[in-house]
Order: sequence, then C-alpha cells, then structure tokens
Amino acid sequence: MFQILSLKNGLDNVQGFFNGSTNVGLRTKPNEDGSLDGDVAFIRSNEPCDVAARFTTNRFAAAPIKHFQRYPKDFQTNFILINAKNANAMTGIKGIEDIDTLFAKLESKTKLHNPIMSSTGVIGYRLPLDKLATAFDNFDFNARDSEKTARAIMTTDSFKKEICFKVTLDDGNSFHIAAIAKGAGMINPAMATMLCFIVTDADIPKEDMDELLGIAVENSFNRISVDGDTSTNDTVLLLANKTSMVYDKDAFREALNKITFELAMMILRDGEGATKVVAFEVKGAANDEDAKKASILLSNSLLVKTALFGEDPNWGRIASTIGASGIECDEDKLIIHYDNLLIYSGEQRELDKEREEKAYKIMKQNSFHITCDLGLGDGSYTSYGCDLSYDYVKINAEYRT
Amino acid sequence: MFQILSLKNGLDNVQGFFNGSTNVGLRTKPNEDGSLDGDVAFIRSNEPCDVAARFTTNRFAAAPIKHFQRYPKDFQTNFILINAKNANAMTGIKGIEDIDTLFAKLESKTKLHNPIMSSTGVIGYRLPLDKLATAFDNFDFNARDSEKTARAIMTTDSFKKEICFKVTLDDGNSFHIAAIAKGAGMINPAMATMLCFIVTDADIPKEDMDELLGIAVENSFNRISVDGDTSTNDTVLLLANKTSMVYDKDAFREALNKITFELAMMILRDGEGATKVVAFEVKGAANDEDAKKASILLSNSLLVKTALFGEDPNWGRIASTIGASGIECDEDKLIIHYDNLLIYSGEQRELDKEREEKAYKIMKQNSFHITCDLGLGDGSYTSYGCDLSYDYVKINAEYRT
Repeated sequence: MFQILSLKNGLDNVQGFFNGSTNVGLRTKPNEDGSLDGDVAFIRSNEPCDVAARFTTNRFAAAPIKHFQRYPKDFQTNFILINAKNANAMTGIKGIEDIDTLFAKLESKTKLHNPIMSSTGVIGYRLPLDKLATAFDNFDFNARDSEKTARAIMTTDSFKKEICFKVTLDDGNSFHIAAIAKGAGMINPAMATMLCFIVTDADIPKEDMDELLGIAVENSFNRISVDGDTSTNDTVLLLANKTSMVYDKDAFREALNKITFELAMMILRDGEGATKVVAFEVKGAANDEDAKKASILLSNSLLVKTALFGEDPNWGRIASTIGASGIECDEDKLIIHYDNLLIYSGEQRELDKEREEKAYKIMKQNSFHITCDLGLGDGSYTSYGCDLSYDYVKINAEYRT
Repeated sequence: MFQILSLKNGLDNVQGFFNGSTNVGLRTKPNEDGSLDGDVAFIRSNEPCDVAARFTTNRFAAAPIKHFQRYPKDFQTNFILINAKNANAMTGIKGIEDIDTLFAKLESKTKLHNPIMSSTGVIGYRLPLDKLATAFDNFDFNARDSEKTARAIMTTDSFKKEICFKVTLDDGNSFHIAAIAKGAGMINPAMATMLCFIVTDADIPKEDMDELLGIAVENSFNRISVDGDTSTNDTVLLLANKTSMVYDKDAFREALNKITFELAMMILRDGEGATKVVAFEVKGAANDEDAKKASILLSNSLLVKTALFGEDPNWGRIASTIGASGIECDEDKLIIHYDNLLIYSGEQRELDKEREEKAYKIMKQNSFHITCDLGLGDGSYTSYGCDLSYDYVKINAEYRT
C-alpha cells in the first residue's frame, strides 16, 4: 500500500528539477492587481530525463510538436522551453527552424540535452526570436518558482493550474510527481488547447511511463469538452529523472491518474465563461463505443450547454442528442437521472411540478451528474462538460483583437 | 426551355390546395404589433396527392413521423395537420395513438384520406388533445391564407418563410410549386429542427418526386448548420395533386432546387441570434467525402462561429478546424480565400496590415464566401453556416422557461 499527500508549490517539490519564467513583452496586459505575468518559462532537470508524450490529433500539429517528433525514439531531455501568446502553428518548416535557432542561442547560457519547446497562443505567426531570446539573460536556471511558471503559460485561463503529490510507500520511501497545466477553451475530447507538463523523481521504467501516461490522459484530458474543437498545439509531457530511486507501479498509476484528472477538472471549471461542470454518464449502451459516442456528443451539444446555463431541466435536449448520435437506443427503455433524481423513463415521461422543482435545485449546483441508462447492454462511458454562457461568446469573439 | 416566375402568397397559388390556421391557446405570446399568430394549421387538397418525404435521422423520431411511417408505401393523402409549441416527441406509443384520436375527431368536419400530422415544439409532453380539437371548429377548410399558415408553424423563427414559383414551359403551359417552412435553431447538416411543406399541381410521376426531393434536400437543408444538433421532428413533405396536367422534369428539378435552397438560406439567416451567413467551400480535397467532413466541421465550429461574430480575420481557427477534421491535408499546400481575398497560402502565411484591413471589410458583410483549397485532389463540398452571437445563448438558455 501507499499514501498520497498533496503538497503546495507544485513543481518545486520534485528533486533535481528547476523552473522559472520571465516576461519578454509578449504579454502586455497586467492582472487586476497590477502585476504582470511572465510569457516565457522553462522546466529543467540536472539529470537527463526519460520522456513520455501525448500530442494533438490535429493534422496541422504546430512546429514544436514536429520539432519534438524529429528526435529519435527513446531520447532523453533535460529542458523544456515554453512560451505563451504565439502558437508557432501553420508556420511551416521555418517554424521548426526557429526553434533550433532559439536553442542555439540558449545553449550558451545553460547545458542543453535534446531540449523540447512548447508553445500556445495565436496561430499563424512566426515566433519573435529576438524578444524570446532576451528571456535567456533573465532566467535564473536554478530557480524553483512553480506558481509563477504556472502563471506564465496561461492564455485565457483565469487561474493557474499546478499540483504536486508526495507518494510514500509502506517502507517509508517516497517519490514526488507534480504538474502545471494551462487550458480554458477549445477543450475537446481527443485533447484540448492545453499544455500539461508533469515531472517526477520516481524511478519509473520508460515503458511504464508511456503505458501509464496513455491511461491517465484517456481518463482525464480526453474526457473533457468545452466547445468541441481540437487545437494544433495540445501537449502532455511526462519527464522522469529517477532521482529518488523509489518506485511502485500501482502507487505511481494512482498518483498520475489523480493529477491528470484533477487538472482536467480545473481546466473544465476554467472553461471560457463556464459556470458549472457536468458529468455525462452513458450506461446500458449496446457497447462501450456507442456509450462514448453519445456521452461526447452530450458534452459538446450547444443546446445541452445552453440549457445547463439556463438551469432549465429540459431533458428533451438530452434525449434528442442521444437520438442524434446515431447509436442504438429505444425511447421506451431510456432512463435519465440528474444526480439521484429520476427525470425520464419510459413509464414516467412527463416531468411533474414536484420533480421539476427538485431538478431546478440540482441544476443550480456548481456541478452535478447526468446519467443516461439506455437499458440495452453493458457499454458505458463518462465524459465531462460545462455550460455555455454569454461570456464564452464574448471571450472568443474578442480574442486576438 | 422554361421560365420560372416568383409569385406572392405562397401556397395560395397552387391549384386544388387550401390552407388555414387558428390559435387554440398553445401560443400565448403576442407579436410586437399586438397580433397573435396561430398555433395549429392545415394544408389540404381536393384530390388525393402522391407524397415524397424526408425525415430526421434522429433515432428518437417523434410520434408524427412514426405515424406517417405506418402508412403503406406509395400511399396517397389529402391532408396535413400541423401544430407548433409541442413536438409530440418521446411520447411513446401513446403519442402515436393521440394522432389517431385527433384525426377521428377531425373526420366529422372534413373528408380525410390518410391524413398526416407534423409537430414542432418542446419535447416530452403529450399533445393537449382537447385544445387541439377546438381548431377543427374554427378552421375554414376552403381558406387560402398562406401567410398566416406560414406564421402559425413558427417557433423561434423571427420571420415567416414561404415561397411560390410559377413554371411556364415553352408551349405556354404552366404549373406551380410552393412551400412554407419553419426553422431557426438546432439546424444541422442531416436536417434541422425544421418543417417544410411543399405542394405542387405539376403532373409529376411518383418516382420523380422521390428522386428530385432527395437531390433538393441534399443540396439545401442538409448543407446548413446553425449549431450542430439534429432534432427529433425534422420533416420535408412534397405533395403533388397533378391538377395542372403539366410537367417537365428539368423545369421541376430546377424550381424545386431553387425553393429548397432559398428556404434553407432563409432558415440560416434566421439562425437564432445570427448576424451573417457564410458559405464554407472546401475544394482540392483528396475526395468528396473529405471535403464534406471539413466543410461541415467548419460550419459547426464554435470557434469559427464566434470569430465570424467578432469579425476577426483569424484564419488560424479555419485552418485548425480543417486539421481537426482528421482528413488528409498539408499546411504547405493549403490556400484560404475570403471572397476573392487571399488570406493564407504556404507562401504567404502571415496576414499583413493591408490584407487584414481588406479582410475586416469582407467580414462586415451580411454574407461572404470562405474557400479552402487543400491542393490535393478533386474533392469538393460547400456547406453554409452562420455566426454565433450572445443572442443565441440568450434564446436557448431562456427557451421553454
């Protein structure tokens, strides 16, 4: 067995890792308290790290992702450079060369071993190399300043996302796993406009890293949806420097799943303009694939999202969306619950006043659970969505301008 | 050859057809001028009509659609009864029996031959039979009042949709084809929350009706998108009473295509909260299927829709959406135009100030054309979408309550 303890100061707790950030003038808008967040950040390790990664399925993957993919399989790295405000996407071969140019400059300041870049921001513009390079004079490469680093990678995020777990095994030995993430819009199953950097000092074998990261991403970032679009830059990186010499697979799996799930929920809660988070559980489907299809359509449906925002217990939109998914379903067998409240069944089709009142109360919560039991088989899937408010339109109509 | 002439007063021009409407108390909110539209309407023909139909692909098709489908193949009808404010969907076998109950009452007032019902409104409530039946005393079965009939079937529509063409052949003989439609939201490729009733006095053979309606719907209602959802009640009906004894296939095809396309554009312009209509042409795709996939994703993308509303020439969202569609594409070969303005190509990636100014002007129009040439093959497809405004959220958050 093992114990998982939550620690403050995210990345700073992990042995042998350093992180820092600075502002090079890409981000010009100060926070409400007058402070100005960074726009370029780094995470580095004294020792070369094994790497596991998951990237966007968008066919126009951004230059940093293509740059990563040029490294040989099973390469090790000691450095991640991250910038906000410019995605370095749709920039062609020049966008990849720009990354090499940056790293050539950075190399004179600190030891680099297969450095990785990660970018987020507006699509279609070359990186401002001279501005970015000024960061290299300002970085304190021995800093541990996780909170600022987490803030430096934000775009439309309204709060920083960082998390750290200390995992203690029965023999008293322990390792750390920590992460920072950004993301608040364009969040879609099959990843999101989100960056997530996970570092660990656990002595995890390379093959476990890839297997466990795959499971963790599938059960977290791939299950959240803000608006159904998939970005060019989505990236999840896991770096392990093995410094603690401690490892237990079950403990690591659980800690990693917890980290990615909690970050995913933070991203969803920070969904552009979102006021509530809803779990869409589809069960009793003919098979898991059907359940997934319906669940994801529910978390993406504009009509469902606006009904959630309006706190209208209009289960017709839930049913219609399931019907529209094209999966096997039968209106006589369908049963819908909001939390524990029966909303619809073949026997109780119309919502009476009493149940409608109860449904209103459930929908007023910050989060609740919608369960759709198709009554056909064992297929099940849960995805997580948020409501769509006026502010989503405002944020996205005004972004960039 | 032939001539197509547009006539006022929609359905009223077609020989042998009658239409009317009344308010039975389902619609209680008056218009701004104080008038109150109907909520129940009929279309009837003196002679039995051949019928062609297209219905929603939603698995929870509403009771009226199931009622229609119980008639034998190639049945003839003389009557369509239509109500707004209640969709009679998710009402099970009782919902179908309710329709028979209504027609049993109606039969004492007018001659019925395989009558059809069509409903639109809120999902999940039984039809108020007693209220609906009061319509039968108020109907003037010999009325020709197309404008009011078109208004009686509206839900969130902000204007009525009716159209009539008189088609004159070279020999001087002519026939009519006319339609009314409703629809303003939930509009999605693979049909829409829309009802469309087309009547003609052309002497069209039954087999042509089905063939030509299929083509017309595929090129109109199936290519428009307001928000990506598919309703339980979508219906397109074509009734032909052959009264004119005149027919020409080419002329009929063209007139029918024109009618459905113009109605589809009206529905799109009336998209809930929409301020502009945009054509999304994808060409140069590896095949037509790829082009369709990308085009439809573009017209459904929330990020594209909000960028259109914000009049922001952020082509990155267009490119990202194409990349997210999973089709074959290459950022070096892609070329994007807004109307005739080059927005992106592998050679000209960044939008300079001059072209950005021109792009703003194009986007300020009520409608414009976005062309994405993938540069790979001959596949092409065009779909039509609208922007997403604050009002969409408002209308849909407040619908029903």
